[in-house]
Amino acid sequence: MTFLPDLPSDADLSPFVEAGLRDLAALVALESVSAQHRMLPETADAVTRLLEAEGFTVRRFPGEVAPVLLAEAGQGPRTLLIYNHYDVQPESPLELWDSPPFALTERGERLYGRGISDDKGEFVSRLAALRAVKARNGGQLPLKVRWLIEGEEEIGSPSLASFVEQHAGDLKADGCWWEFGSITADGTPQLFLGLKGIVCLELRCRVADSDLHSSLGAVVDNPLWRLAAAVASLRDASGRVTIPGFHDDVRPPSEADLQAVAALPEARTPLQDTYRVTRFLGEAAEHQHRSNFMPVLNVNGFHGGYGDAGSKTVLPAEGFVKLDFRLVPDQDPARVVALLRAHLEAQGFGDIEVVELESHEHSGRTSPDEPFIATVRSALEAVYGTAPQVIPSSGGSGPIHPFLHHVGVPVAMMGIGNVGGRVHAPNENILRRDFVSGVRFGTVFLEALAQGE
Amino acid sequence: MTFLPDLPSDADLSPFVEAGLRDLAALVALESVSAQHRMLPETADAVTRLLEAEGFTVRRFPGEVAPVLLAEAGQGPRTLLIYNHYDVQPESPLELWDSPPFALTERGERLYGRGISDDKGEFVSRLAALRAVKARNGGQLPLKVRWLIEGEEEIGSPSLASFVEQHAGDLKADGCWWEFGSITADGTPQLFLGLKGIVCLELRCRVADSDLHSSLGAVVDNPLWRLAAAVASLRDASGRVTIPGFHDDVRPPSEADLQAVAALPEARTPLQDTYRVTRFLGEAAEHQHRSNFMPVLNVNGFHGGYGDAGSKTVLPAEGFVKLDFRLVPDQDPARVVALLRAHLEAQGFGDIEVVELESHEHSGRTSPDEPFIATVRSALEAVYGTAPQVIPSSGGSGPIHPFLHHVGVPVAMMGIGNVGGRVHAPNENILRRDFVSGVRFGTVFLEALAQGE
Repeated sequence: MTFLPDLPSDADLSPFVEAGLRDLAALVALESVSAQHRMLPETADAVTRLLEAEGFTVRRFPGEVAPVLLAEAGQGPRTLLIYNHYDVQPESPLELWDSPPFALTERGERLYGRGISDDKGEFVSRLAALRAVKARNGGQLPLKVRWLIEGEEEIGSPSLASFVEQHAGDLKADGCWWEFGSITADGTPQLFLGLKGIVCLELRCRVADSDLHSSLGAVVDNPLWRLAAAVASLRDASGRVTIPGFHDDVRPPSEADLQAVAALPEARTPLQDTYRVTRFLGEAAEHQHRSNFMPVLNVNGFHGGYGDAGSKTVLPAEGFVKLDFRLVPDQDPARVVALLRAHLEAQGFGDIEVVELESHEHSGRTSPDEPFIATVRSALEAVYGTAPQVIPSSGGSGPIHPFLHHVGVPVAMMGIGNVGGRVHAPNENILRRDFVSGVRFGTVFLEALAQGE
Repeated sequence: MTFLPDLPSDADLSPFVEAGLRDLAALVALESVSAQHRMLPETADAVTRLLEAEGFTVRRFPGEVAPVLLAEAGQGPRTLLIYNHYDVQPESPLELWDSPPFALTERGERLYGRGISDDKGEFVSRLAALRAVKARNGGQLPLKVRWLIEGEEEIGSPSLASFVEQHAGDLKADGCWWEFGSITADGTPQLFLGLKGIVCLELRCRVADSDLHSSLGAVVDNPLWRLAAAVASLRDASGRVTIPGFHDDVRPPSEADLQAVAALPEARTPLQDTYRVTRFLGEAAEHQHRSNFMPVLNVNGFHGGYGDAGSKTVLPAEGFVKLDFRLVPDQDPARVVALLRAHLEAQGFGDIEVVELESHEHSGRTSPDEPFIATVRSALEAVYGTAPQVIPSSGGSGPIHPFLHHVGVPVAMMGIGNVGGRVHAPNENILRRDFVSGVRFGTVFLEALAQGE
């Protein structure tokens, strides 16, 4: 049974919320675009100052393009690891923003700006909660907080896996609070417990040095047909990957994971309403099961030859396809690449070049049965007035695997994102309401964890 | 046995060659780009003046975007129909031209300019030959010449089929001299006797109103995979079209066509040398047979989703594919479209939209056994000093079918193009040598035809 502290009122929280929003405005103003190596040391400095002001000891390590920060503060029998990142996605296309991307702007119920949700808003809401906890506990933080903050998450966290492995001893904790989370449109918190792995690849095919007239199509092979046939061979119409051996290592979902998914609400309607999706895969009843447990092949892009209006009777010299695989436990990214290469070779597509893009990630899931997760769920239910949706795995990916594998810490993902939050897109936003609730949740959660057995 | 007149010497031809090149310079200066509706009536005027100066009666008919000219001159027991066009392809990309596209420019052995080969050079070389014939025959043209000149060939001749059908009586002749032809690098004339048909299509697939995050790939179908699977299902790795019923109407090549193809030289080496082609279809020994007789599916372009450097984990909302089919006798373009639609439906791709682009053309071939072809071959051998390559069908397409079907006239394709002529591309050119030989050939051919039985 989880101990639950009194809920702080809006009035109690107000000074921490307002101070937090000032900190958030200052962080949003720092253009920490990791893909473009913009203002990363400066943003690491600003984060360091905020943490040091709360009594954290901050260590700084070099990453591939941005510093990794590892901070520690507080004393108590329990330890919480928090993972956030201070880098953001590029702001382009600029013309689709309704206010400057690097200026926190409030309009109606929402606060806008690049990184306001992902991930500066999450970081600041947790910092504000920590300040509230200290104020409610005589200036002391009644548990140990280890805070890992990187600046390369938006480029695939290339430094993180080896950092976590090397510093596993410094990251030990009763649980890890992941960098994101979200609240549904009706105010229900979504608690994610896992992430899919990812492999990004490019396939390239070339048949000549320059484009040919398509009258030669009887005697010269077509690189776009070859790529199409190769891509077609990778999955079937149901979406199941058809590469031999691909499913061999898939760990079946546990009974607890299956039960959690069985309790999740219908999820197609929001997709239909928001995106007018016309072609779903699988039956409606399988939706959540597929989303949580199914490894996937995505075609991100396919390009070659003529693309303007009308026709041009060209036989293109070359083309390329961008792919991502979303993996589940215990699929190994390197093995997936090897299986893909062997499959293409066996299908007669050995001429198609396979280029690996960026770093790969393994999937990972924390069990809903973990005691740490029970504390998270109780705190969420207390603050939001409704039980959270417990989602065993996001369809998305992230560097969860080294935390599970090297540190052995359970991971919970809860935060302040919203379904219309336009993360990675123009007009990224959070709801003010979710920020306030996030500070309240953090306060309750930290105290509950500190006082638990 | 074909009567062959004396070959005119270079000195005999010189005044006609030089006058022809002046006419050609004037025509090249007219920017008659049919795709852009540029200077089409003006160019029709210029062509009309050149023909009227040689005693032609010229009738002018409205086409879809450019006038169709039908001219007639000469008297004799034999009639020759000539088909040319006065429109040209767009000159873009301008920066790849080494001299202004609309200024005839001589450099080394070659004359450069848009349309200098396709098709203004062909037209003028024939006009120059006709002047030489008149000079050698007391100012008279000893055969009837009917000259059909359109201005919409480069946009698929949308007006021609119905024009030819309506004016079939005015187009009757012993044979038709087609608008193009070519000379190999070693000086051997290539005589084409047929063209493939063509159908240009676009396939479109859409699954949502906007792009989605690829984490949704387990539950939302991927339009690029659907297009890839649809395209893959249209042919096999050998290049054979796999749409049910597609081959039903294919007329097998005649014994004469097969014999002609068996006599053709090896054709892969030039493609390897010029374009560094690395993936041929079929065996080397089948090359000419495939090129002449095989119907083909070409993928001209495939576009959708992310196409820049690195990866972007997007599930695109939509994509499209541009296709052309090259058809053989007696395949019907409309039936091919219907079979494609039925095939896609049967394969589960009924959601993929099939858009027809531009006008379709039927294939057509003239038999190598035609008496008119014997005259052409004899004249070619006499002028070029070597027997022509007789090619039953080009891999390319054009409006041959209405001439065969409605007029019933045998068609022969011989001219002044060269393998490095860059037709439709920057630095379009002809060899001065081929222009002179073309005028000589025209002179000999017209006289041989006029005096034949």
